[in-house]
Amino acid sequence: MARPKTSHTTKLEPFRKILTSVAENRRVGEWKLSPRDLKLPVKHSWSVRQRTLHGGKQEGVEVIEVDNGALRFTVIPTRGMGILRVEMGDVRLGWDSPVKEVVHPQFVNLASGGGLGWLEGFNEFIVRCGLESCGAPGPDTFRNDAGGEVKRDLTLHGKIANTPASEVEVVIERAPPYRIRIRGRVDERSLFGPQFELWTEISTEPGSNKFRVKDQIRNVGASVQEFQMLYHVNYGAPLLEAGARFRAAAKSVTPRNDYPAKDIRHFDTFAGPTAGAAEQVYFLEPQADGAGRAKILLHNAAADRGASMNFSVEQLPCFTLWKNTVAIADGYVTGLEPGTGFPNPRQMERQAGRVPRLAPGEARRFALDFAIHRDRAQVAAAVGVA
Amino acid sequence: MARPKTSHTTKLEPFRKILTSVAENRRVGEWKLSPRDLKLPVKHSWSVRQRTLHGGKQEGVEVIEVDNGALRFTVIPTRGMGILRVEMGDVRLGWDSPVKEVVHPQFVNLASGGGLGWLEGFNEFIVRCGLESCGAPGPDTFRNDAGGEVKRDLTLHGKIANTPASEVEVVIERAPPYRIRIRGRVDERSLFGPQFELWTEISTEPGSNKFRVKDQIRNVGASVQEFQMLYHVNYGAPLLEAGARFRAAAKSVTPRNDYPAKDIRHFDTFAGPTAGAAEQVYFLEPQADGAGRAKILLHNAAADRGASMNFSVEQLPCFTLWKNTVAIADGYVTGLEPGTGFPNPRQMERQAGRVPRLAPGEARRFALDFAIHRDRAQVAAAVGVA
Amino acid sequence: MARPKTSHTTKLEPFRKILTSVAENRRVGEWKLSPRDLKLPVKHSWSVRQRTLHGGKQEGVEVIEVDNGALRFTVIPTRGMGILRVEMGDVRLGWDSPVKEVVHPQFVNLASGGGLGWLEGFNEFIVRCGLESCGAPGPDTFRNDAGGEVKRDLTLHGKIANTPASEVEVVIERAPPYRIRIRGRVDERSLFGPQFELWTEISTEPGSNKFRVKDQIRNVGASVQEFQMLYHVNYGAPLLEAGARFRAAAKSVTPRNDYPAKDIRHFDTFAGPTAGAAEQVYFLEPQADGAGRAKILLHNAAADRGASMNFSVEQLPCFTLWKNTVAIADGYVTGLEPGTGFPNPRQMERQAGRVPRLAPGEARRFALDFAIHRDRAQVAAAVGVA
Repeated sequence: MARPKTSHTTKLEPFRKILTSVAENRRVGEWKLSPRDLKLPVKHSWSVRQRTLHGGKQEGVEVIEVDNGALRFTVIPTRGMGILRVEMGDVRLGWDSPVKEVVHPQFVNLASGGGLGWLEGFNEFIVRCGLESCGAPGPDTFRNDAGGEVKRDLTLHGKIANTPASEVEVVIERAPPYRIRIRGRVDERSLFGPQFELWTEISTEPGSNKFRVKDQIRNVGASVQEFQMLYHVNYGAPLLEAGARFRAAAKSVTPRNDYPAKDIRHFDTFAGPTAGAAEQVYFLEPQADGAGRAKILLHNAAADRGASMNFSVEQLPCFTLWKNTVAIADGYVTGLEPGTGFPNPRQMERQAGRVPRLAPGEARRFALDFAIHRDRAQVAAAVGVA
Repeated sequence: MARPKTSHTTKLEPFRKILTSVAENRRVGEWKLSPRDLKLPVKHSWSVRQRTLHGGKQEGVEVIEVDNGALRFTVIPTRGMGILRVEMGDVRLGWDSPVKEVVHPQFVNLASGGGLGWLEGFNEFIVRCGLESCGAPGPDTFRNDAGGEVKRDLTLHGKIANTPASEVEVVIERAPPYRIRIRGRVDERSLFGPQFELWTEISTEPGSNKFRVKDQIRNVGASVQEFQMLYHVNYGAPLLEAGARFRAAAKSVTPRNDYPAKDIRHFDTFAGPTAGAAEQVYFLEPQADGAGRAKILLHNAAADRGASMNFSVEQLPCFTLWKNTVAIADGYVTGLEPGTGFPNPRQMERQAGRVPRLAPGEARRFALDFAIHRDRAQVAAAVGVA
Repeated sequence: MARPKTSHTTKLEPFRKILTSVAENRRVGEWKLSPRDLKLPVKHSWSVRQRTLHGGKQEGVEVIEVDNGALRFTVIPTRGMGILRVEMGDVRLGWDSPVKEVVHPQFVNLASGGGLGWLEGFNEFIVRCGLESCGAPGPDTFRNDAGGEVKRDLTLHGKIANTPASEVEVVIERAPPYRIRIRGRVDERSLFGPQFELWTEISTEPGSNKFRVKDQIRNVGASVQEFQMLYHVNYGAPLLEAGARFRAAAKSVTPRNDYPAKDIRHFDTFAGPTAGAAEQVYFLEPQADGAGRAKILLHNAAADRGASMNFSVEQLPCFTLWKNTVAIADGYVTGLEPGTGFPNPRQMERQAGRVPRLAPGEARRFALDFAIHRDRAQVAAAVGVA
């Protein structure tokens, strides 16, 4: 008599594949997965694929391409688990940076050009800025817990985006809705420096127009440690164009300096590509909904294509809107940037009380939900929400 | 009835092999080609070979070795398409740098030692200096087109020589004289920085004592952009020795400072290797011939071995003679350096009007012809020319 | 009649395997050797194994693991032939750095954080500091032999530990006691800079509780050249603990500054892990024995586990004791550091006459003998010696 199978199927361990592991001294390289490999139902023909890039400054970079059957995204383990781009139909989340290759960190000198080397590899849709510091480069002086004066020469947006992941795994739920998770741990550790472990996760459900970023930063050192985290979320065409709109509820909007100040009344609309345009930066205090979440929407001029994100204002109380409406060839882009603070020099952020601290062993979590809206009705619904 | 084949053979597409390509995500690795592979006549037993170097700081460097049946040269795609050395019989173009390995850019920190890290990888016969800047390291302040003040911390001779090529191809003409071309594209691009594409080509004909460097730099950004280009062409033994001669028609010769000034009368002859000798630098305005080309010759003391180059003074109006007649072990070398300017700090070059600009989409071409002379008669003929 | 074989066996050439060679363009990769491979007697089941590490910042690092049948050590050719750890039974020589990976030099920017980037890769048991400079980072100005003023921006502990070996070989004696040698050459060379070749050797005998480090630095340039060499030998648990003892005969003990000065009476005992503890540094003049050697011992609180080293005070006249008794998670460690000088800024060391010089072609040798002591009697015997 056959054994009953019910108990086996009610509580299924998810499928788990380790692609990279310092602990196991593993790097899988080329790899592919589809529902058939797991004998899962194929309602949505999803796939996960890892491959290695070649040539120029992208030699040796590994990328993981996820297709949930409707929406596709590309994760870059070699660049701190950043997200290169997301695509669904004719909507692309991302931008056309002058940097055309997915640059391997070996070719990035963060100290280059007065601490601006980060810009030589910057072309992701979502790039994390941190962990010891983010924001403008320059010297920072502060007192450590032992009372000693510490001087650090900080570089733009910190190190995490140019640090390869130490552990990378793909996790697939075996029960509906069969969520697909790409997880990676990126370490930022040094003697006499901070000791952070960042676990990142990007996930989606087969057939969905949504994806989620869930991160956790932990201080694995024995001393209290400052940190900074900012999600640099960058949009170009087709969402960004002349007449595109930024929509968010905000308690305040503060221009960074005089130049954006003169355009404050139009801070939420965008100019078309303009050669030589100078960047404009606005600092926002997002207004949370009843659930404590800020909702942010960017849509095109016709309001029939858009992308929204929402996040907890307790986790990410600051929001920066970066308008860099230069010519297409120079990198026409807007950055929608929830963070623990604003991307000012860390010294300025510390004085404003916006540099959080982690006790030994303490962790902080961040969760951001994204959705793509592909017609006027969807955008209108999202506007209602946002 | 057979189709006539005449039309097919009169206009033959050249053979083309892509060795590295970011666009096609390709890196071929080890590869070899001979006339037999193309069913071409084998009057000169030429070959092209790509291989990968191993060990120390050269781990992972790719080199392309071309033998035209008489003359051999080695191109380094991993180091900006520089030319490591050229050899023909007992004449070697190149030098014995203290740097013995072909150093991978991952091991070069250009900012090292006050912006002198470039020297830790410098051992090529021909190395391009540029593209955003070349010359002495240090801070530079200038106004961009938007009127904003920009500060840059420049490093010696810029980045291009430590940038791996993004596209590399071998092109062989299928019709006489069956020219062999090694072509590579090296990008120097950054957000908020210059956006240059440099297409390089080194070519030769089977059996010839000559080779040609043909480059094109294009501003693919949307803003006017300064650039600098200098060809650092370096000779040691056997051409450089006590009594070796530099021959060029020049409108002016200007010592860089007092130390070479005292030897101005002998600026065109060379001392033998001398431990502890200080470098001497002379700036020349080359005198063009009727075709607008400057002709430069270096020959040994006996005038029976030499190398000449010629180039357009419109393209490269400045010429620097660098005499570094230190001990052999310390890098006995002379640099013959045609450029868009002189290797002074960029600020000084800008004030002198020697930092050219490229409009959006604009390109500038450079062509340099080289020849090796292997007996007294050939050198004498070249002297007549030079 | 068979030829007598005696002459063949009395003088046997050692087995020699080249694992990495710039000269031969070789990188063997994974490799393993045991006595059986050499048809040697297997009294002690020793082995030598090379493997490549993967994931995170250790991607591509090669390590050589030696097991002499009793004692095991790991050498890192990719990091200047440093020694990651040594183990024998329950004694481990090494420490638990916050840096968990064996970091590839491509991910270390020595200039990072004001010249402190070295700390982002620091986790070895023995790491060499040098060769052009070691000690605290900062600017240094001096006159070269030609009388010119040279400015250098030095980084913490120099470059050698982040330079991959150019030549690596395993040498096994075919006659008793069948000594196992791991040899590697690390070059530190630059135009206008020092030209050093460092040959390193780590060796042991099958079944022994001892190992030896024998290095030679040679100035292969044509100019007199300053150098600095310091062996940063680092211990954590199980030898380092509250009540652990440092034992050495010293002519003088000088605290680096006021903070260690107040604890000078207890400089030779160690506190347990203490979160936020500041480092204490003592400079010692070791007292040599009749053979001219200094003997240094570190043992645990119970005096039943210890490690000793001895070295020539003529070769290494200075000894630094670094006490960094922070929390375990922050890198609880003590550094026992014989050197040609102390790890002060080079300018200070030069003024004190502690920066040695090498004439062209001149070499300097260093030999350090290490032993592990695993019970009270062995430690007591070593105390008698030390």
